[in-house]
Amino acid sequence: MEKLECIFCQETYSPDLMFPFCPECKEPLLISYPSRKRELFLEKDGLERYSDFLPLKEINKNLGLGEGNTPLLSLDRIQKKFTLPFIWAKDETTNPTHSFKDRGSAVAIQKAATMGVGSIGTVSTGNMAASTAAYGDRAGLKTYIFLKEDTSQEKLLSTALFNPILVKVKGDYGALFRKSYSLGQKLRIYFMNSVDPFRIEGYKVTGYEIFQQLNRQAPQYIFVPLSSGGHLIGLMRAFLELKQEGLIHNYPTFVGIQAKGCSPIARAFIQGNVKVERMIKARTIAQAISNPDPPGGNIALKMIRENKGMIMDVSDKEILAAQEMLAEEEGLFCQPASATALAALLKLPEKMQFEGHDKIVLIITGKAIKSTPGLESLKPDIHQTSLSGLEKTMNSLLI
Amino acid sequence: MEKLECIFCQETYSPDLMFPFCPECKEPLLISYPSRKRELFLEKDGLERYSDFLPLKEINKNLGLGEGNTPLLSLDRIQKKFTLPFIWAKDETTNPTHSFKDRGSAVAIQKAATMGVGSIGTVSTGNMAASTAAYGDRAGLKTYIFLKEDTSQEKLLSTALFNPILVKVKGDYGALFRKSYSLGQKLRIYFMNSVDPFRIEGYKVTGYEIFQQLNRQAPQYIFVPLSSGGHLIGLMRAFLELKQEGLIHNYPTFVGIQAKGCSPIARAFIQGNVKVERMIKARTIAQAISNPDPPGGNIALKMIRENKGMIMDVSDKEILAAQEMLAEEEGLFCQPASATALAALLKLPEKMQFEGHDKIVLIITGKAIKSTPGLESLKPDIHQTSLSGLEKTMNSLLI
Repeated sequence: MEKLECIFCQETYSPDLMFPFCPECKEPLLISYPSRKRELFLEKDGLERYSDFLPLKEINKNLGLGEGNTPLLSLDRIQKKFTLPFIWAKDETTNPTHSFKDRGSAVAIQKAATMGVGSIGTVSTGNMAASTAAYGDRAGLKTYIFLKEDTSQEKLLSTALFNPILVKVKGDYGALFRKSYSLGQKLRIYFMNSVDPFRIEGYKVTGYEIFQQLNRQAPQYIFVPLSSGGHLIGLMRAFLELKQEGLIHNYPTFVGIQAKGCSPIARAFIQGNVKVERMIKARTIAQAISNPDPPGGNIALKMIRENKGMIMDVSDKEILAAQEMLAEEEGLFCQPASATALAALLKLPEKMQFEGHDKIVLIITGKAIKSTPGLESLKPDIHQTSLSGLEKTMNSLLI
Repeated sequence: MEKLECIFCQETYSPDLMFPFCPECKEPLLISYPSRKRELFLEKDGLERYSDFLPLKEINKNLGLGEGNTPLLSLDRIQKKFTLPFIWAKDETTNPTHSFKDRGSAVAIQKAATMGVGSIGTVSTGNMAASTAAYGDRAGLKTYIFLKEDTSQEKLLSTALFNPILVKVKGDYGALFRKSYSLGQKLRIYFMNSVDPFRIEGYKVTGYEIFQQLNRQAPQYIFVPLSSGGHLIGLMRAFLELKQEGLIHNYPTFVGIQAKGCSPIARAFIQGNVKVERMIKARTIAQAISNPDPPGGNIALKMIRENKGMIMDVSDKEILAAQEMLAEEEGLFCQPASATALAALLKLPEKMQFEGHDKIVLIITGKAIKSTPGLESLKPDIHQTSLSGLEKTMNSLLI
């Protein structure tokens, strides 16, 4: 049984994995590893290569969808255009459902298969919903997707094609996130949400791949779009562990980027606050990182401060310009949320002194998909309920 | 300088690479290799691993977008459901622009960079247009996309984001295809169309990957959606070359699949004709394989007959059912055109006797993409002209 740790209280716990939050401070718990020498198994492929760094006893290859092993593309044209150091894009859009979420789903589904649950779920309307539903199908598990009341039919298409059970819930989104865990415990549904500790472990693999793709070195800078916090936490942990094992000597400067229209973590960072304050309104084209109440915000803030990183924001205009530049200069198309990484880099040089030999990695997090004919005929069943009626609705669905 | 061969006249030629057609019979020419021992360089990555099998003197890694190295996923749930032999899906949707076309563009762009042309082009409205435009950007080459008159704005979005020069041409599509070559020669634009010999060489790499992913074996069956013919020709060549080098002993049975609503090659196969007859009307949801006048049709037909393969068709209804099954049973989402492979397999067992240890590979060719916000604001410039006015339009664009 895994131990989980609270990085605030510095305690380890063995809680119900379906409610991975600190009983004291309520922050998300992360996987705790006993101190021992770990190594990469380069002769193996996929998750097995990183099994020493992952909280999985066994890896069932049939649960995977070929996630990971994504390209690290040098962006020479942009580098020259702006006289920058070496820049690479880690292209997570080539994952099976076109976002980094597949990395997390791939590890969480392995855990789900050994937990003896027949169902999984997530609270999301975007990339995470599609990814979770795809891995649920692959594993033969029923998948529940909890949605905000105002989620449009169109936004759901890339999820609906995997035919999960869609439940639209009226009420506060943060409260729904918390409710999903208590319902999950009661109804034996493993909710692998954005800050699930196994999901976060999956994001570490991206860091190990970058290390190998740069000939076993860490870059000087890693730019990561920042939403719930889970992705950044996973990437930072990857390099902390590589350092702990003596595989690297320098720790990268992590730059977390939010969209100006929804930047609760960037605000807390700039204002020097210890806790992230929830934002009331969110308005940005970078929908995939528009989370006004990020559950991993406080952890991300603490880890960034402790490791000399920074968090910044970029405007929608800067995002669109960066998205266009990645496509037109480098042939790389991504979501607006992913373009924040380049937008941030291009804002920085005035303030930051790069060295000529510095290596910069931009994490290109995702892309949305849409089918050619066939998909528009999809009329997904959507169950509607209020937050207070959710348990009743779920019970009726479970019959 | 590469030699090209006509597999009908059995002659080799050294023609202008920008007009790769047989001077005698007008059929597309393919790359001809001098007889010599070739090998796979397993210690290398990407195209370099296969350089001995590719017509490239040097490989410039910076022109790539991380194409290839796609997953081979075992489809256990579908296998069990229908009591079939081992089935795998070769998931080409994880390529950078989400289709197998990137394999061909990746090799053709290498050639373009050494030919001293400043521009490339293609005649397409779908996946090939997006792929060619992306690789054109990556190489810093101007890209011209010739479109059918009735191409909708929406269909163009995934191409338009790479900002190529879009030229809508009134007139016959087959004639436009031929005209692109004569204009290309005149204006020094390398049109890397569907049956370009370098593009076809790129498709071979998929075959070599399958060989390695199956522990250096060939499968017994390979199902390939069939449109212009280029993809099937490339895959068949890959295994012919592996056999020639003594790396495999059995040659797979190739099954080419067309949609019933546009099946000129399947018709010729079933009717026992040597030449493919152009279809007048095409009507299928499998748009990506809807080519009523396939330029590589005769070659595909000849290669399939000589190597004991078969060509069949499937209905739109069968396609949609297969698309849904791939998503719901295996978590794999693809275009209708790609689902034809599974649709065909599920039609077969009555007629075909599989052995229990047979290995079947379905090629999942592609997926269409659409952005979240930002893309719908794209209002691409589209130049319009008639076939007879095309040269004048092109001259004005080249100034």
